[in-house]
Amino acid sequence: MTRFDAMPARRMDHVAAFHVMDIQRRAFELEAQGRSIIHMEIGQPDFGAPEPVRARAAELVAGHRLGYTDTLGLPALREAIARHYRIVDDLDIDPARVMVTTGATGALMTLLGCYTNPGDEYLMPDPCYPCNRHLAALFGGRARLLPTSADTRFQLCADDVRVAWGPHTRGVIIASPSNPTGTCIARDELAAIVQTVRERGGITIIDEIYLGLSHGERQRSALDLGEDVMVVNSFSKYFAMTGWRLGWLVAPPEAMRPLERFAQNAAICPPALSQHAAIAAFDDASIALCESRRRIFTERRDLLLPALRAAGFGIPVTPDGAFYLYVDCGPLATTASALATRLLEEAGVAATPGIDFGDHDAERYMRFAHTCPAAEITRAVAAIGRIL
Amino acid sequence: MTRFDAMPARRMDHVAAFHVMDIQRRAFELEAQGRSIIHMEIGQPDFGAPEPVRARAAELVAGHRLGYTDTLGLPALREAIARHYRIVDDLDIDPARVMVTTGATGALMTLLGCYTNPGDEYLMPDPCYPCNRHLAALFGGRARLLPTSADTRFQLCADDVRVAWGPHTRGVIIASPSNPTGTCIARDELAAIVQTVRERGGITIIDEIYLGLSHGERQRSALDLGEDVMVVNSFSKYFAMTGWRLGWLVAPPEAMRPLERFAQNAAICPPALSQHAAIAAFDDASIALCESRRRIFTERRDLLLPALRAAGFGIPVTPDGAFYLYVDCGPLATTASALATRLLEEAGVAATPGIDFGDHDAERYMRFAHTCPAAEITRAVAAIGRIL
Repeated sequence: MTRFDAMPARRMDHVAAFHVMDIQRRAFELEAQGRSIIHMEIGQPDFGAPEPVRARAAELVAGHRLGYTDTLGLPALREAIARHYRIVDDLDIDPARVMVTTGATGALMTLLGCYTNPGDEYLMPDPCYPCNRHLAALFGGRARLLPTSADTRFQLCADDVRVAWGPHTRGVIIASPSNPTGTCIARDELAAIVQTVRERGGITIIDEIYLGLSHGERQRSALDLGEDVMVVNSFSKYFAMTGWRLGWLVAPPEAMRPLERFAQNAAICPPALSQHAAIAAFDDASIALCESRRRIFTERRDLLLPALRAAGFGIPVTPDGAFYLYVDCGPLATTASALATRLLEEAGVAATPGIDFGDHDAERYMRFAHTCPAAEITRAVAAIGRIL
Repeated sequence: MTRFDAMPARRMDHVAAFHVMDIQRRAFELEAQGRSIIHMEIGQPDFGAPEPVRARAAELVAGHRLGYTDTLGLPALREAIARHYRIVDDLDIDPARVMVTTGATGALMTLLGCYTNPGDEYLMPDPCYPCNRHLAALFGGRARLLPTSADTRFQLCADDVRVAWGPHTRGVIIASPSNPTGTCIARDELAAIVQTVRERGGITIIDEIYLGLSHGERQRSALDLGEDVMVVNSFSKYFAMTGWRLGWLVAPPEAMRPLERFAQNAAICPPALSQHAAIAAFDDASIALCESRRRIFTERRDLLLPALRAAGFGIPVTPDGAFYLYVDCGPLATTASALATRLLEEAGVAATPGIDFGDHDAERYMRFAHTCPAAEITRAVAAIGRIL
């Protein structure tokens, strides 16, 4: 026991480990021991960056100095992002409202750091992406998790927001498609939530990092619900560029200067090589590739979902997008955590227990990411079937 | 006026813009208008990454998936960093105490976020690196700037720390060599400060990002002053990899798990390509190149220093390292800020006014970065001479 054991700041009591990273580490340990592990724990496409991005990156490392960029990101990349909204959503977004960030994580941190006072509360659905609540906690804020169920496809309703809104509520954070459930929020409901928050002078943050990965018809960005909506996105999922650590946010014009001031200190700038190369992510060839991958994720959903149902898991909602299945372990185990450990240790299948995503029914659910080829999915389900 | 104008969190009142980024932007604007600007404002080597790093990066973008890495960084990179301490400082550092971060910025943010409670105070010399005080402010902490002067080579003394230490003091942050002054802290004084902080149960954070760039004999890392010393370093300066956004920290063993928990949420992991490629930064060929560049920075100091003196600037201390000259504008102008604007607009020379670095005598000093070739330095000084 040294002075450092007792020393972490009080906020760290509310910053839980990101369990999936620990599960991944255990999976790597088992692999180092010679075990074969099928990775369905982490939200990471098994594809790499599109070829045009790689080609551009290879050119850049040879001849380019790769210094600091503008804190808000390369102007050409901000313009490419704005143009993408025009092409896919028919939306006119001023590039001045686009800020490039170090992953969507950097975007969420910048937004929450810039707008959260100690004691502020954000309404979030339970289950939701775990870092949202921890990032709020970094700045003295707290998540107020509103329990959801399969009845609302695990998304919030405007009524939930109205009832839960209190004197300390600062805003609402919603992901559509959601991690861990893959479900989208209904358009009307989202518009009603944005209006509810607007009337109360709050902030709506929409995480759209899985928006490009819709199963079937593409969902529209929430940016057309008003200039006051703050949107977070990423190159990690649709463009399969996780390790490149690149994302973006779109915010109201008046928010850009404080956000920039925050990031000048907290980031200086996002990775330069990733930024330069990401411009090529919007090339026709890249988009065509990403669209074909999107269809592959849908095929995998359609393989994994019935197979897990046949193995005994409950799957109350069919995901609209992303690459996750949120499955009910109730019929199979007392706790999802214990089952996740068994699956990893005995079947060699890594999946993420519900406790990463909230409190409500957290020990009942588990998340499978179908981010591995169909043959591995088939092997995984067979291995699970053998031990259950 | 919308609700967002009044909405930034209170902490943002204490998070000033990083002025140098604004100056850089103005310099870019002038260049876009066809003006020729000599960049001496930003702390960025004019060299790129060493060739072995570029070569490794080119291989990686072709064939590697570049997914998330472990939050603490690639094990091979953490080992390479530990090995480097053994080679250059004859220090045995357990790789388990090394955490790879998204730039030194990520390292400082992780340390301060993890150990700062609202109201905590950090003692820092004035002048110092501006983001240190703003990063503390992000987490409700505050910098207590202790005025320094040329008498102590702009570094703190243990007596300063003893006198200033109060009930809310959490620790001390020191950079050696310092930005903006390029001066090192005397070994005995640093040891006395570490001991003073230790006796008070506090934290000593030493920024060693310019340690590799000593003029003349290399300074030793502060890590040999005890396992409780926290050190921050970067690939940006000695290895000239600014845009790659990669740094590291070394911390006590008991601190690693909270630091990891913070970073799992706030970063997920540092850029993967940068991490893989940075392993090659420790190759013999890379180190040989970086050492030759170190000597070039010394030659530039020896060119710029007498030239600026001849132009009328006061230069009270000769830097021990880094690539900065901190010059006294008192003989030439009422405020360094106004002079910096004149130099940029009229002479086409971008330099950073002292207000970026603190309050004490801030309008008297200006920082020149000798991060451009000798010919440009000569041109810059001639242009300054013409307008003064």
